[in-house]
Amino acid sequence: MRIAILAHEKFPGRAKTALGLLRYSDDEVVAVLDRDTAGSRVRDFVGDVQDAPIVASMADAPDCDALVVGIAPIGGGFEESWRDDVRTALRNGCDLVAGLHYFLEDDDEFSELAAAHGGDIWDVRRPPADLTVADGVAGEVDAEVVCTVGTDCSVGKMTATMELCEAARAAGHDAAVVPTGQTGIMIENWGVPVDRVVSDFTAGAVESMILEKGDEYDYLFVEGQGSITHPAYSAVTCGILHGAQPDSLVLCHEAGREAVHGYESYPLQPVETYVDLYEELAAPVRETGVVAGALNTVSVEDDAAARDAVDEFADTLGTPATDLVRFGAGDVLEAIL
Amino acid sequence: MRIAILAHEKFPGRAKTALGLLRYSDDEVVAVLDRDTAGSRVRDFVGDVQDAPIVASMADAPDCDALVVGIAPIGGGFEESWRDDVRTALRNGCDLVAGLHYFLEDDDEFSELAAAHGGDIWDVRRPPADLTVADGVAGEVDAEVVCTVGTDCSVGKMTATMELCEAARAAGHDAAVVPTGQTGIMIENWGVPVDRVVSDFTAGAVESMILEKGDEYDYLFVEGQGSITHPAYSAVTCGILHGAQPDSLVLCHEAGREAVHGYESYPLQPVETYVDLYEELAAPVRETGVVAGALNTVSVEDDAAARDAVDEFADTLGTPATDLVRFGAGDVLEAIL
Repeated sequence: MRIAILAHEKFPGRAKTALGLLRYSDDEVVAVLDRDTAGSRVRDFVGDVQDAPIVASMADAPDCDALVVGIAPIGGGFEESWRDDVRTALRNGCDLVAGLHYFLEDDDEFSELAAAHGGDIWDVRRPPADLTVADGVAGEVDAEVVCTVGTDCSVGKMTATMELCEAARAAGHDAAVVPTGQTGIMIENWGVPVDRVVSDFTAGAVESMILEKGDEYDYLFVEGQGSITHPAYSAVTCGILHGAQPDSLVLCHEAGREAVHGYESYPLQPVETYVDLYEELAAPVRETGVVAGALNTVSVEDDAAARDAVDEFADTLGTPATDLVRFGAGDVLEAIL
Repeated sequence: MRIAILAHEKFPGRAKTALGLLRYSDDEVVAVLDRDTAGSRVRDFVGDVQDAPIVASMADAPDCDALVVGIAPIGGGFEESWRDDVRTALRNGCDLVAGLHYFLEDDDEFSELAAAHGGDIWDVRRPPADLTVADGVAGEVDAEVVCTVGTDCSVGKMTATMELCEAARAAGHDAAVVPTGQTGIMIENWGVPVDRVVSDFTAGAVESMILEKGDEYDYLFVEGQGSITHPAYSAVTCGILHGAQPDSLVLCHEAGREAVHGYESYPLQPVETYVDLYEELAAPVRETGVVAGALNTVSVEDDAAARDAVDEFADTLGTPATDLVRFGAGDVLEAIL
């Protein structure tokens, strides 16, 4: 697939989904749409992802198969200033992919244009209609299931999941990602937005994905969400833990994070507390353990200091650890596989 | 309010909602509709609830303000054999209350009849549209918040919640129930069906209820759901625990239960495991503790054996315990207040 990514006025700093696609998607990115930085290239800003020209509008983009909305305004609405780009894409017969709270399929103009020109609209945040409660059987699949879990939101669980799966593939294993959030779903072109499903179906949504892929692969890497002690999001975390029935866990943490992101009155716990909680909570459904750590050292400028932080994290966990982006998988992969 | 309760072919054994209303509702039940047992009275079957005549149809029921659907077929659909009763009720200007998965407000005939005759239709399983993520502030309300938690589904959390609130009121305290499931919502005439909300809003849904009532009462008794180690429903349990930020927990268990109801390959854990998990999982958001036990001894015929089971449960917990229905609140209330 050839895709264009809409990221107006937000590339690269506030375009997490766009960056995720540029870094991990198998699709070819033919252009990023950002009217603020048009005329430059992705590589002018970010070094370690696929390159693409940055253009001001869809009219300036090369031919492609899909337009992906790669940013989300606060509130998840649709910005009317994007309408011309979406129109142009749909008139060209492109598919439209978006992860907004506002579903583009429900926009009359867009649905009519898509029907008229043969494009599909995929609102990745709309959960499938056929979800139900878990049967408690995810543990029965052939694949070994590895789940990323975290000390908080936004510590790098999606990134760790992608990096670990790539590393496993590079080592010759048949591995797949089980995506649970919008960016992961866009990258992998399938998945269920677990945070949007009916709460009673949280574990069931994950289980259905494990069952769908579990006999096709040797390893499944399940993208975790939130944290088991998060004041707002722990329900989703808990449902993934029990629904996925993982064989092993990789604990993700950001170096220097001291309080829950956006809930600063809640200090993070000692790392050992998360290990104990995830393992003890999982055990009655399926015994599992934290076998490795993924430390996000993006806030640590100096490589030596980052290496020290990783070593300390590994010591605390009593398992191998790494910053997957900065230092590669190293002995973490061996601990998992 | 004067209400009639529809329970065709299921009263009393398979009419949990009907029985809950007869036992705990402040509304006057003018009739139970059950074509199988019509002509008898509630008291012919159940001793410790309000009495009412059992009639074959709404046409035979005394005047009332609302018809409540007090049963749920497997799948939660609407039985067409109930349509005549619902029609009659709406034509009489009654409100209609139901907790089905199928929303009666979306039935064209019913919505037109309700509009024409001035009745309201309340589908209690439809979550409010304005829910959002938790802010992590439920702990700030004036009320002391008590949450029932369980070793499994269907061990008596709703019943324990109602009994404890009644006992607190009888002792002169200003107390209210925070209902999270359909029967509790019908009994209390307000509440959010927490298992039906968007998973990301699970804690937020509970928090919004705590904030709504928390400064009006001295004690709030939050109806728990599921169990923290349930293979399918733990997400909802976890969201309630962190969203409600309870000051204390009452652990509910059924005597003799050995495996997860409906998931028989999963044995229940030792009772102490649940105490540890609930307390350790809650602590990073808000310190709390199991201060009492509520044992459901319905399966134990002999009173002395039931008393022994309660004593053993109390010993294991190291707190007071009781069967609230069989033996009353006893010293459990003191441990909570």
